[in-house]
Amino acid sequence: MSRVYLDWNATAPLRDEAKAAMLAAMDVAGNPSSVHTEGRAAKALVEKARAQVAEAVGCKPQEVIFTSGATEAASFLSDLPGGHAVEVDPTAHDALWAHHRPDPGAEVQWRALGLANSETGIVSDLPEGADRAVIDATQAIGRLPFAFGWSGAAAAIVSAHKFGGPKGVGALILREGLDIPALQRGGGQEMGRRSGTENILGIAGTGAAIAAALQDLAAGTWDRVAQLRDSLEAAVEAAAPDTIFVGRGTQRLPNTTCFATPGWKGETQVMTMDLAGFAISAGSACSSGKVKASRVLTAMGYPGEVAGSAIRVSLGPYTTEEDIARFADVWTDKRKRHATRAA
Amino acid sequence: MSRVYLDWNATAPLRDEAKAAMLAAMDVAGNPSSVHTEGRAAKALVEKARAQVAEAVGCKPQEVIFTSGATEAASFLSDLPGGHAVEVDPTAHDALWAHHRPDPGAEVQWRALGLANSETGIVSDLPEGADRAVIDATQAIGRLPFAFGWSGAAAAIVSAHKFGGPKGVGALILREGLDIPALQRGGGQEMGRRSGTENILGIAGTGAAIAAALQDLAAGTWDRVAQLRDSLEAAVEAAAPDTIFVGRGTQRLPNTTCFATPGWKGETQVMTMDLAGFAISAGSACSSGKVKASRVLTAMGYPGEVAGSAIRVSLGPYTTEEDIARFADVWTDKRKRHATRAA
Repeated sequence: MSRVYLDWNATAPLRDEAKAAMLAAMDVAGNPSSVHTEGRAAKALVEKARAQVAEAVGCKPQEVIFTSGATEAASFLSDLPGGHAVEVDPTAHDALWAHHRPDPGAEVQWRALGLANSETGIVSDLPEGADRAVIDATQAIGRLPFAFGWSGAAAAIVSAHKFGGPKGVGALILREGLDIPALQRGGGQEMGRRSGTENILGIAGTGAAIAAALQDLAAGTWDRVAQLRDSLEAAVEAAAPDTIFVGRGTQRLPNTTCFATPGWKGETQVMTMDLAGFAISAGSACSSGKVKASRVLTAMGYPGEVAGSAIRVSLGPYTTEEDIARFADVWTDKRKRHATRAA
Repeated sequence: MSRVYLDWNATAPLRDEAKAAMLAAMDVAGNPSSVHTEGRAAKALVEKARAQVAEAVGCKPQEVIFTSGATEAASFLSDLPGGHAVEVDPTAHDALWAHHRPDPGAEVQWRALGLANSETGIVSDLPEGADRAVIDATQAIGRLPFAFGWSGAAAAIVSAHKFGGPKGVGALILREGLDIPALQRGGGQEMGRRSGTENILGIAGTGAAIAAALQDLAAGTWDRVAQLRDSLEAAVEAAAPDTIFVGRGTQRLPNTTCFATPGWKGETQVMTMDLAGFAISAGSACSSGKVKASRVLTAMGYPGEVAGSAIRVSLGPYTTEEDIARFADVWTDKRKRHATRAA
């Protein structure tokens, strides 16, 4: 029986379009900073991807700064000079939360938040005073309509591997005219905002993946995924009526469900289901293996027993009805066994 | 007539071994932070590459921190707390030079330098008091024997694309027991020293490339390259006896020659030779297109006219005798035409 991957919020499988773009880029030998023919060919790959990202996120190409991922993109929040405070939403990802630095007396107040939560899928409203808002759009890009331009936000954070690009590459979208310290200093690449030889393969893969993700979104791919997610929740609820579905009924990502079964630890569920052939998660991937309860659910007000017994099941375009039916059957069976043992 | 790539110090073509490793890694869907089977498979790729890098640079696996390249690896030098001074060698790459922060009164003195210079190929002696030395080994790895363990250095900087790995990935080698601020904060990856989802493809390619580079080094691949480089210098000297060869006769990288022809601008030579089918460089790639004379040559004491008329020709294992003979012929011809026009 082949395995069923239901952890798309941790990372999505690499899209065929990204693979093809990366394979083609492997034959481009130059350094994009070199002025000769080979260098210009490499530079052209970067600029093509920049245009693809700009189109997909609704910004200007010159507002796209390629980075090694969301974590690097968020890092500028800790490098802002004195007089800047950073208020991070407590349900935001650790990549943002690491920069929480509130200071009610500071001149400039930045607010950082996730557009869609990685653990629960819950979609946030954009804050008032968006011109100092930093939006973590990693889980939303390609799954929800998003246009940086009209969001009014100062910055947005993009991670390629969440929409089928490669891992370890992303972008900071920074509103034109805003000045922040360079993300990395050195050779002056990325218009001086992020030095370092560009990850050509990763950037080419990012551009191809985001263009394909945008097409999928427009084609309604995620409507089918949302139906599968809803049918999964219905099956779980039928088998275990006391299950707590986090964020159900609110605006959520189409692919995400987070549910808690007090008395059955999330970590145990992850391991049990892994042995049975299913990849799911308890909390975000970065927090995997840590024993403490989800910071996100705790911040939402759930008691420790609920937060500690939650799992996240996140679907993708490759997920099938059969995958979901099998998951529901096996999970229900394992839950009964656990309840029997615990009784 | 196919083009001749003689800019290996800017970036080397991707090795077949790296391509194969990256292709295989494309099918590994998991996030290395996930505890399930798919996550552990991704984690295994990272750890395999870590062992390959450790073996190649002569350090312990736990001393390898994967980064987005040399620039990120060097960035900790600016994040050290108060009481730390950083003295960067004036011939070092901009990725290090950006962190030059001398302070004779500081408690802790760090010294950063290139093991082999990217523009001239000149090899530096390790400094006294190496336990606070940060060695930029980007141009040396795979071309010269190097063992971090017995260098006594505090840290070394590795860039994959210089030895045939992909661009945008590298490592900081940090002596066990040393404590520096995390390169990136967030999810706690890389033993807490560098958060952010790992560049799986890039890291797999880095491991495969460095292992192959180590074999090539042991097999004497670069002895042949050094002979080609020497024959190129002899041909240039025969045609233009007034040529200044920077660092000739000192210990240099086997593949690099840097020579100056006062009166003929380096930038012009690069463009002329590019049109004739050859990729070479004036200074490091990051400085390409900038009009100022090489900081490296200026720091070495060369007057502006010499520094501004230098080119770097850097060879690799794929370079052939015919490539070198053609380059010498064309360069000699172009030089004569330039001299005629200038007269």
